Amino acid sequence: MSGTLYGVGVGPGDPELVTLKAVRVLRDCPVVAYPASLDGKSLARAAAEPHVGAGKTEIVIRLPFTPGRADTDERYDRAAQDLAGHLAAGRDVAMLCLGDPLVYGTFAHVMARLAGRFPISVVPGVTSLSAAAAATSQPLAIRDESLAVVPATLDEEPLLEQMKAADSIAVVKVGRHLAKLKRVLDRLGLTAQARYVEFAATGAERVRALGDVGQADSAYFAVVLVRKTEAFP
Amino acid sequence: MSGTLYGVGVGPGDPELVTLKAVRVLRDCPVVAYPASLDGKSLARAAAEPHVGAGKTEIVIRLPFTPGRADTDERYDRAAQDLAGHLAAGRDVAMLCLGDPLVYGTFAHVMARLAGRFPISVVPGVTSLSAAAAATSQPLAIRDESLAVVPATLDEEPLLEQMKAADSIAVVKVGRHLAKLKRVLDRLGLTAQARYVEFAATGAERVRALGDVGQADSAYFAVVLVRKTEAFP
Repeated sequence: MSGTLYGVGVGPGDPELVTLKAVRVLRDCPVVAYPASLDGKSLARAAAEPHVGAGKTEIVIRLPFTPGRADTDERYDRAAQDLAGHLAAGRDVAMLCLGDPLVYGTFAHVMARLAGRFPISVVPGVTSLSAAAAATSQPLAIRDESLAVVPATLDEEPLLEQMKAADSIAVVKVGRHLAKLKRVLDRLGLTAQARYVEFAATGAERVRALGDVGQADSAYFAVVLVRKTEAFP
Repeated sequence: MSGTLYGVGVGPGDPELVTLKAVRVLRDCPVVAYPASLDGKSLARAAAEPHVGAGKTEIVIRLPFTPGRADTDERYDRAAQDLAGHLAAGRDVAMLCLGDPLVYGTFAHVMARLAGRFPISVVPGVTSLSAAAAATSQPLAIRDESLAVVPATLDEEPLLEQMKAADSIAVVKVGRHLAKLKRVLDRLGLTAQARYVEFAATGAERVRALGDVGQADSAYFAVVLVRKTEAFP
């Protein structure tokens, strides 16, 4: 009997925004894996900190922050191979994912490599988009509104194209793409209502008008929220 | 000292997909409010069932399923007034919201009526979109992909317009709009990869190819997920 691979969403950062199911799965899995930066820091591991018990085998998947595709593919291959060893030996593996495993998560790439070989189960989590909206007290979407979730990593024209039709916009992966994002929002006449939220649902949470944020000051883990329609008090 | 209004996301349905923070807030609030259908059935209340302790004052906010706007505005006015009475008397109120309070939730409408008068705090939750993605084992978005969240309640042309640019599409509020949605996806050549997920993360969860679903068979609480780009195993 092989083990099961669990993709466990641990929420946006606050360990209290982890679900009961995630806590249970973490408790029951002998092996816990998580993505980390090259120096070993892991926001996913930090979000799950109080819930990862003692005596676990921990697998750190080191990834560069702004990965070239080929480079990461190899890293994912190696990570998948590591996990496969434990799964084949019958050990359940929980892979921690900041936010939700299937929303811009590294889990999808590991899952793609192991699907069909081992049972896979995804535990959904609270996204940083929901946490950012909570920080601003503005809805992501109401009634018949559409919501576009767009990575700031796109080039200027595709970025604008993705934002044009939607009633509400959530821009992820802002970081060093701030200047381009500001140009696009200016062209759409949306700069005034754009809010910049960094580190939502962590101790460093901060909400500002986008106009008040400079590039030197822009975090990778920032979300920019823009409502085109109804303003909220 | 007035009480605080909490918008508490209780997740997509499974009581185990409630966060630790939601459980704590529910435990601490003496008043619990929730939206329900006209006959008093409430999916939000059901999702929170094991976490709502005894001895709470419960406020049922009855709303029609497919509301006319004026009609519901009056209902929201009355609900906000009810909650305001408790808040003014210094009692904290938890309003339960299926999924996340700021993603197509009724909470936003109550919040809009009480903002400025009372402290308001939002506890984000796991959305039915994340739960639906988990059910299909397909990512909502990876890498540089954009995601459009679109309500099927839109007319055919705006519906198509909202779907055109995005790499990945999540259609909410499907219910009686199934035939129109199928026409739009046909026009975009996307029917083959559209997956219909109903009651994600509940005992009645079911995933089907969209083509296999008939109108008589279509649930209000269904989500249709479409990936245009990379297919996953």
